[in-house]
Amino acid sequence: MKNVLIIGCGLLGSSLLRRIHKKKLAKKIFVYEKSKKNIRKIKKLKLSGILVKRPQDVAAESELIIFCTPISEYKKIILKINNNLSPRHIITDVGSSKLVLSKIIKKNIKKDISWTSSHPIAGSEVSGPEHGKQSLFENKWCVLIKDKKSNIKHLKFLHSFWKKMGSKTVEMSLEKHDKIFSITSHLPHLIAYNLVKSAQDFEKKQKYNLLKYSAGGLRDFSRIAASNEIMWRDIFFDNKKNVSKAINLFIKNLNEFKKDINLNRNNSILKKLMQTKKVRSQIIKLKQDINKPDFGR
Amino acid sequence: MKNVLIIGCGLLGSSLLRRIHKKKLAKKIFVYEKSKKNIRKIKKLKLSGILVKRPQDVAAESELIIFCTPISEYKKIILKINNNLSPRHIITDVGSSKLVLSKIIKKNIKKDISWTSSHPIAGSEVSGPEHGKQSLFENKWCVLIKDKKSNIKHLKFLHSFWKKMGSKTVEMSLEKHDKIFSITSHLPHLIAYNLVKSAQDFEKKQKYNLLKYSAGGLRDFSRIAASNEIMWRDIFFDNKKNVSKAINLFIKNLNEFKKDINLNRNNSILKKLMQTKKVRSQIIKLKQDINKPDFGR
Repeated sequence: MKNVLIIGCGLLGSSLLRRIHKKKLAKKIFVYEKSKKNIRKIKKLKLSGILVKRPQDVAAESELIIFCTPISEYKKIILKINNNLSPRHIITDVGSSKLVLSKIIKKNIKKDISWTSSHPIAGSEVSGPEHGKQSLFENKWCVLIKDKKSNIKHLKFLHSFWKKMGSKTVEMSLEKHDKIFSITSHLPHLIAYNLVKSAQDFEKKQKYNLLKYSAGGLRDFSRIAASNEIMWRDIFFDNKKNVSKAINLFIKNLNEFKKDINLNRNNSILKKLMQTKKVRSQIIKLKQDINKPDFGR
Repeated sequence: MKNVLIIGCGLLGSSLLRRIHKKKLAKKIFVYEKSKKNIRKIKKLKLSGILVKRPQDVAAESELIIFCTPISEYKKIILKINNNLSPRHIITDVGSSKLVLSKIIKKNIKKDISWTSSHPIAGSEVSGPEHGKQSLFENKWCVLIKDKKSNIKHLKFLHSFWKKMGSKTVEMSLEKHDKIFSITSHLPHLIAYNLVKSAQDFEKKQKYNLLKYSAGGLRDFSRIAASNEIMWRDIFFDNKKNVSKAINLFIKNLNEFKKDINLNRNNSILKKLMQTKKVRSQIIKLKQDINKPDFGR
């Protein structure tokens, strides 16, 4: 690969930067980062990319352009680099939801430019370049969005690129992607935020010091609920149709659980509690987690 | 301490056994365990207690009796040992909810016998004697239930006992305990079960293989939702009044989140997402978790 332009150098962007540098995959690695705080961190960390003030200055000479900013930043940046793009550019992103994002791209990007969306399942509750690491993507899935209009050459390039990042790749339609991740990622995050919010409300009303006793379960949710708020707002807004459906299903099931509890429905509740256990063993079998008990960290 | 009788030798019971043995805190450690499977495990693990077939045979000579079974087992066992109890017996338990439990005790135990309830915050998603360890209670909170009728001598004994287990102790009324843990522990577990159940329903309906992509958030919930089903059914039933209220608060907040998302209420959602972050830093300050990012295990 000749040059690469990484747009947004937080957790994911800086991890790509570190990996591409370590594996010597590009001649030059250009980095565009808007936040002054992050730029200071990048310099302090002595990360190896070439910081650029205007992405449009280096877009033309970059073979691969990767968007790693929150979704709400895409339009602005597309408009900046639009005139410097040509059909030979391979453009991708690491966004966690794809529907609205694809509309923003379609609406703003020049004709004949193709964009092949990626989603590496490698996020965490932390953000910022100081948390990135070259091994972040290792053994993680990376979803590549494929539809009728996909540029097969670019798709092939990106399969190979993500494998070099250490990932396993899989192709999926945009619609399937957004549905699946509304359940496996977006709803869990929303639920974690909502649980912590409910604990705060309770604490305020009861004036109890709850958090001392958070090790019983709340603690684990608070970690997920500490994730980047801009990124998650964008994801919830972007995938609102599927997220709304997921919330409805969740509330319906929760009301059923409440009935089980209030009516002492023994068989009904035990059946549910036992069935959910099976999911855990499937997840471990699929190597999405390890089978080591967690007694708190 | 002379002799101790541990009733139920799963995760918590076997951890107590290991710790009491290691620290040489009792002359004899009697263990009553109902499950044949667990008895086989205890023998295979060569745990040091004296396995007894009938708790009533050793109750009289035990200074301390600790109930470590699911709540639904209490009545049966109380009726077995009742005639062998005297007011000098120090009796406690490790149950996670206290209201119904206290009623079962009051209704079934002989007059003049006092029972001082404990709740060590040291559970996990695993159960069974093979997962116990002598350090399980170290630096964990142990709540001691105190009310007007509490036996102050026994309470003092138990403070000292749990400190020898490595715990920090705190006194609380039964009502306050059940309210606090409905939010910090019971609701989080129910939510985790409910999320996994919802993912299963979705998977069935859509015929997608979701779990491959569970690393985005669902994975963490599946761990909590793999906890012992009998224990959790008992807790939900026992603390139904507070758990129901917690569910209502949770659903109310979740509906507000849904509105924020569907109506693109930017300020409202950002405010919530940012506020929940604060809880995380408080939890870390309180040493209920560490500040290390979790990229999956």
